[in-house]
Amino acid sequence: MGVTVRDLSSSDRAAAAEVLRASKAFTVEEVLVALDVLDDALAGGTAAGYAAFAAERHGSFAGYVCGGSTPLTESTWHVYWICVHPAAHGTGVGQALTEHFEAHVRWRGAQRVIVETSGRPDYARARRFYDSAGYRPVGRIPDYYRKGDDCVLYCKVL
Amino acid sequence: MGVTVRDLSSSDRAAAAEVLRASKAFTVEEVLVALDVLDDALAGGTAAGYAAFAAERHGSFAGYVCGGSTPLTESTWHVYWICVHPAAHGTGVGQALTEHFEAHVRWRGAQRVIVETSGRPDYARARRFYDSAGYRPVGRIPDYYRKGDDCVLYCKVL
Repeated sequence: MGVTVRDLSSSDRAAAAEVLRASKAFTVEEVLVALDVLDDALAGGTAAGYAAFAAERHGSFAGYVCGGSTPLTESTWHVYWICVHPAAHGTGVGQALTEHFEAHVRWRGAQRVIVETSGRPDYARARRFYDSAGYRPVGRIPDYYRKGDDCVLYCKVL
Repeated sequence: MGVTVRDLSSSDRAAAAEVLRASKAFTVEEVLVALDVLDDALAGGTAAGYAAFAAERHGSFAGYVCGGSTPLTESTWHVYWICVHPAAHGTGVGQALTEHFEAHVRWRGAQRVIVETSGRPDYARARRFYDSAGYRPVGRIPDYYRKGDDCVLYCKVL
């Protein structure tokens, strides 16, 4: 399917920002926070407990994933952000990023990965993706992001 | 009951560290992380979205609470850490800290407070405390902290 996954580097920052904007899934504030998290991951690197990967499809930047080990846990990691360019939706980019992330963090000792996402109808596609990738719902916080916008927590045991 | 709650200040750091150690509820790593969070709260203050309060009982430092507004949410706050000296357990210090924190963050726009705690048997007292204070379980992540040590998430709507 022409998708390759490699380490995210600082030269990917503009492309990552463009994917975040193009996805139309995030508010301006959310894009800025996502870029802050990405900058922390690029600056801190694996020594600071981060993991970040880029996906290319037919040679073009198509998305990225960024996560880290969860403080005060022995073997739990969080996905902080994952985003796929809308032009590449349905082409296996999200799956390739997720599988690469999971294999990498398992190698670093992870035994489970947590993802927090929205319970809004327009996030149904994202939730179906996690369901089909082996993530199980472990919590739901009503009105967490804002009124009518719940947080749904997923956990995958590796 | 002789309990007063006031703003936490940097002169409370040693007393807070002693309460964390005396509680015997935390590992050395957890105490160090708790003090890092406390330092961030004292340095960042309300402008950085923190809230931190100390409780005194009969004039002595008896415990503290530290929390903050949750990024990317409109009106959600987290309690990061709350600790009461074991000599003051059962005297209303935890309740006074929690009520003061809730009233303060509601004033700053909070509509709900999230607490994460352990599902271990030796945390049953803490979970009963949250149950009786109006917090409702909204999630449980098996083996989150380590094998056999689940994370239980509570939410209180203010």
